[in-house]
Amino acid sequence: MRSDSPGIVVGVLGAGQLGRMLALAGYPLGMRFRFADESPAASAAMLAQFSLCRFDDVGSLENFTHGLHVVTYEFENVPVSLAAALAREVAVYPPPRALEVSQDRLIEKCFFNGMGIPTPAFLPVNSRDELADSVRQLSMPAVLKTRQMGYDGKGQFIINTLDDADAAWDAVGRKPLILEEQIAFSAEVSQISVRDTQGNVAHYPLVQNQHRDGLLRYSAPLTGDEWPGIGQIRSQAQDYARRVLTELDYVGVLAIEFFVAGDRLLANEMAPRVHNSGHWTIEGAETSQFENHLRAICGLPLGSTALNGHSAMLNIIGRLPHVPSVLAENGVHLHLYDKEPRAGRKLGHITVRAGTPERRDDLARRIFDLLPQ
Amino acid sequence: MRSDSPGIVVGVLGAGQLGRMLALAGYPLGMRFRFADESPAASAAMLAQFSLCRFDDVGSLENFTHGLHVVTYEFENVPVSLAAALAREVAVYPPPRALEVSQDRLIEKCFFNGMGIPTPAFLPVNSRDELADSVRQLSMPAVLKTRQMGYDGKGQFIINTLDDADAAWDAVGRKPLILEEQIAFSAEVSQISVRDTQGNVAHYPLVQNQHRDGLLRYSAPLTGDEWPGIGQIRSQAQDYARRVLTELDYVGVLAIEFFVAGDRLLANEMAPRVHNSGHWTIEGAETSQFENHLRAICGLPLGSTALNGHSAMLNIIGRLPHVPSVLAENGVHLHLYDKEPRAGRKLGHITVRAGTPERRDDLARRIFDLLPQ
Repeated sequence: MRSDSPGIVVGVLGAGQLGRMLALAGYPLGMRFRFADESPAASAAMLAQFSLCRFDDVGSLENFTHGLHVVTYEFENVPVSLAAALAREVAVYPPPRALEVSQDRLIEKCFFNGMGIPTPAFLPVNSRDELADSVRQLSMPAVLKTRQMGYDGKGQFIINTLDDADAAWDAVGRKPLILEEQIAFSAEVSQISVRDTQGNVAHYPLVQNQHRDGLLRYSAPLTGDEWPGIGQIRSQAQDYARRVLTELDYVGVLAIEFFVAGDRLLANEMAPRVHNSGHWTIEGAETSQFENHLRAICGLPLGSTALNGHSAMLNIIGRLPHVPSVLAENGVHLHLYDKEPRAGRKLGHITVRAGTPERRDDLARRIFDLLPQ
Repeated sequence: MRSDSPGIVVGVLGAGQLGRMLALAGYPLGMRFRFADESPAASAAMLAQFSLCRFDDVGSLENFTHGLHVVTYEFENVPVSLAAALAREVAVYPPPRALEVSQDRLIEKCFFNGMGIPTPAFLPVNSRDELADSVRQLSMPAVLKTRQMGYDGKGQFIINTLDDADAAWDAVGRKPLILEEQIAFSAEVSQISVRDTQGNVAHYPLVQNQHRDGLLRYSAPLTGDEWPGIGQIRSQAQDYARRVLTELDYVGVLAIEFFVAGDRLLANEMAPRVHNSGHWTIEGAETSQFENHLRAICGLPLGSTALNGHSAMLNIIGRLPHVPSVLAENGVHLHLYDKEPRAGRKLGHITVRAGTPERRDDLARRIFDLLPQ
């Protein structure tokens, strides 16, 4: 493993917006990039070397690894067998075991609980009868989820009654499932942390997130005394992140999403990659999550995660706003992913930054009004 | 001219580090880039579409312009005839006349003086006799410069005596020359300003520059009361920039370099492009010079040029520093251009940013000590 950046070639599995922002953060460090993706129209394909591949076919990545110094990924559904095969030829960070844990909601929650990190109550569901039993055991409402390949709220069903359970079973019963207690949360938050090859850990401030229709809409770092007891929640989130990072001998950026319910912090899921709720760090932190991920996987020292002003991020979903109107506002940073508009698709994000939380909130509201609803 | 950015394709003549930083600033706005350069190893070639060309052969750019929405350039020695030929097919910003003025030191100084902008005293030199006459007319020391194709101090000779003049003539006498009074300046400064397609102008704060061996080493915005009378100098620089921008019906970023001598501000030269002394704006201003140049040439509203903390920039010249040591410092932003090290070559720059000018200066000194001398 080289501990340097000039001329280092980073391979990235997946060429979506996360890969694109990795490349934009890594070029200034003198790194070069090669992406592999199943779609030649992927967002990052135009700004680096690109290999068309099939992630279920290791052979299709034969040329991809040639000359790479390190491989990373920008989505957690990279087959573990593929990551493990690549790891025999070149350093792969984060470690393939992190993929394994995060790809299955049941394994993930058992993993959290095994390290003393609380989660919502859950039960595995493998048959219609098991589902009925689970509905009787957990307090309703609950959420029935596919264990694998779920993202952005896809494959999730709210269950209140046995009838709901039956209907949900008919829709997704052929897949391994998990039934989870639905948390009446006061906030959804995420902890984004990064660990380097020496074992050093840095934490970004805890982020508050707002979802709608299963999609992240808004994220902002919690920088002050937003709620009573937030200091405790904050240090708990960092402690949990550190446990996961250490247990996995992790290298790179990790995101863990939590529910806050009263004074309880319950882990929902983790993503072994840079995360949508950390996009504000490009302008809002001294070192962005993208740069810190690259520093970590290339054996370089981590950069400061200190805040730079007060920021918030709004996702652009489905349709683009009128770009000149957005850019006419001061304190606005537009990030488009060059993707074709489509309902429910993340096309970009906007980070607002201001000198005070109040001015940040005002600006976020003005930008929200410019986004197509 | 489209006034929008998503999917707009920007053509850039020259694929050096300035083009590279333009692309890195423009991708987040949804723009795409196509570079033309005479070297396939150019710094920006790896991160966008690339056309190998010869700038003295318009025909070699035939395929380059296909599908472009706007063309700009990242060096001022693009032949005016080439820019004018492209301007018949596609919008070219800044206007080719800005190239014409900046390519010839004599025309440039006459242009400044014609608009009431003072310069050092100068005389054109076209023969050995004319040189001797000029040495007698101007106060010595003076600087003999080639009128064209000079940059980074190349082709310049200090003249104290007629003997010096003779030796210099022997070295460069076959080219059109200009003899300029050498100014005993108290500071070298540059004004970076930007004008959009509607005629709106925005100014970055005046920048102080330090050169050695004809190469820019250090730049930092003058943000406070660094000298007595600096307020006057500052508004004079902005006024001069506005005159030039208006006279040329300019669109894009313009840099003008000045000497400060007592309370006099004397224009030295202008660059119709983003400028090395503005690289600190990537982290140190709300909107970087690269983003504002792109906003301007794409018909978008200009972004705020307000400062973000206290910044300074150090060029990395000739050899790279030890990268992990640089990145281990807080408040440091590394920008490498992925160029082969070579004596006198600009390989990258480092921007330091801090909460106060004093901490900025401390950090700059520590980084300076890490640069190979």
